[in-house]
Amino acid sequence: MSIAEAGEFGLIARIVAQLDEGPAVLLGPGDDAAVVAAPDARVVASTDVLVEGRHFRRDWCTATDVGHRAAAANLADIVAMGAAPTALLVALVAPVDLPVTWPEELATGLGTEAGKVGASVVGGDVSAGPLTVAVTALGDLAGRPPVTRTGAQPGDVLALAGRTGWAAAGYAILSRGFRTPKIFVEAYRRPQVPYAAGPAAALAGATSMIDISDGLLQDLGHVASGSVAGIDVRKDTFEIPAQMRDAAGALGIDPYLWILTGGDDHALAATFPPDAELPEGFTVIGSVHEGTGVTVDRGPWQGGAGWDHFR
Amino acid sequence: MSIAEAGEFGLIARIVAQLDEGPAVLLGPGDDAAVVAAPDARVVASTDVLVEGRHFRRDWCTATDVGHRAAAANLADIVAMGAAPTALLVALVAPVDLPVTWPEELATGLGTEAGKVGASVVGGDVSAGPLTVAVTALGDLAGRPPVTRTGAQPGDVLALAGRTGWAAAGYAILSRGFRTPKIFVEAYRRPQVPYAAGPAAALAGATSMIDISDGLLQDLGHVASGSVAGIDVRKDTFEIPAQMRDAAGALGIDPYLWILTGGDDHALAATFPPDAELPEGFTVIGSVHEGTGVTVDRGPWQGGAGWDHFR
Repeated sequence: MSIAEAGEFGLIARIVAQLDEGPAVLLGPGDDAAVVAAPDARVVASTDVLVEGRHFRRDWCTATDVGHRAAAANLADIVAMGAAPTALLVALVAPVDLPVTWPEELATGLGTEAGKVGASVVGGDVSAGPLTVAVTALGDLAGRPPVTRTGAQPGDVLALAGRTGWAAAGYAILSRGFRTPKIFVEAYRRPQVPYAAGPAAALAGATSMIDISDGLLQDLGHVASGSVAGIDVRKDTFEIPAQMRDAAGALGIDPYLWILTGGDDHALAATFPPDAELPEGFTVIGSVHEGTGVTVDRGPWQGGAGWDHFR
Repeated sequence: MSIAEAGEFGLIARIVAQLDEGPAVLLGPGDDAAVVAAPDARVVASTDVLVEGRHFRRDWCTATDVGHRAAAANLADIVAMGAAPTALLVALVAPVDLPVTWPEELATGLGTEAGKVGASVVGGDVSAGPLTVAVTALGDLAGRPPVTRTGAQPGDVLALAGRTGWAAAGYAILSRGFRTPKIFVEAYRRPQVPYAAGPAAALAGATSMIDISDGLLQDLGHVASGSVAGIDVRKDTFEIPAQMRDAAGALGIDPYLWILTGGDDHALAATFPPDAELPEGFTVIGSVHEGTGVTVDRGPWQGGAGWDHFR
């Protein structure tokens, strides 16, 4: 059955049937708007959009994968503020001949990924058109100030939770027509986001934090410019897994290109005062100093750039 | 200059330059997420998506018009819960050759419409792809329970704030290749939403409320099924303006088709207990009774249906 045959309201009913309600939901799907708890009288909110052919391909990812990826990208933005995600809203644009199982599986992926952090899908909209998934995530700061991109101080340590380069390796593998090694392809399809590290970093006194979605060096550039400071990344702090070294070698790619400029893993980079005790999951990868811009081992990185969504 | 030439971050900077910050904004655009006040520890949230060729045409609407329409559709969902809108988040998908003035003007329209209710654009995302605008609106219930679609009671009066049929008339006029009468074309381009009527209805004890976006009879159908009650609309309560009668006559259309099934004006339909004093702007258009479904003058409406976004 296509979504045109299911009809707008039939489709919505099928999507809602895939969803569970999380603890923050005061009024779930089915009305003009949802009502979500915002316990400390503030709400954190972020939007990310995924477009077929640009952010995903249906022959590379199942609908469930796309749901996981879309949710992960948004939930990562919330935890990067030090907040706990509470809810997702989803705008789905889909061609009328799309099988109705695709949005159903998308909803399953969105709901499962959101469920990892106790959040849930509370509302959305559907329309005919070119396949596009726009997700808005909401979150709760639990009384803490948000951890922004602007607070890094010279002398701070730079630390990373989660991994970089894995999704980029998966993307490179799929781009060349391969389907293995599976660990990288799976990392591209369903990013493993270190969700708990976001609030933990806030509690540990992080001075700045960002979600690595476009590439480590590029995203750290936002922290450097926002904080008016220089950031240096040390290459030798990254241990390149043997499988990544092998895959990179087979494809003729420097694995540090993946590690330093690959996006989509949604690791969290945070800066901490030099005397802070780093929370579980964070590893020191560099430092903040007087100056501007991002360097690698105190010099310019010459190996290639991050992602611009219009190039 | 195209948006590809401006680049992702250049485009975002140009959009943000068009925006003002409303009073609820604790942290505006520029970080992983925004932070918005939610004074009573709850947030109301709704998403609507507009797709080029489906919800708007660039030869019928300026970018500023599209901004007004996209904001209005979302803000109307928030006020239909009885809440006051606080913030919008916008996901813009746009072809790379789109002139950069288009998103700038879109932002102006979004911001101006949001400003009518003291709300503002706090964040968003941009990507290359087919022109699509997905907006999420947030709002504040000021301690009141949300007014849902499920509380209409037999004996209640049905009342309407705002107008119906105007945007449908404008759409019909544009569809036939005309550009006048301008009042209907303008009503299609920039809906006049009775924003203040939403919270006023909540204060006056409305038992249910809905935003009329797909057509009065269709949207009242959601209230009837949600409330497990019948709703009857009285045709003679609608005064058809002379200009609408003339335009309908010229196009060979029954003006009640526009009034009863036309969407996109974002009027608010609410039910009130029989002894309630109706707030300013509301007019009685019918009643709630034991039963199911929506009738017109106690009989079935045979003149055509509302809008299904997949047909």
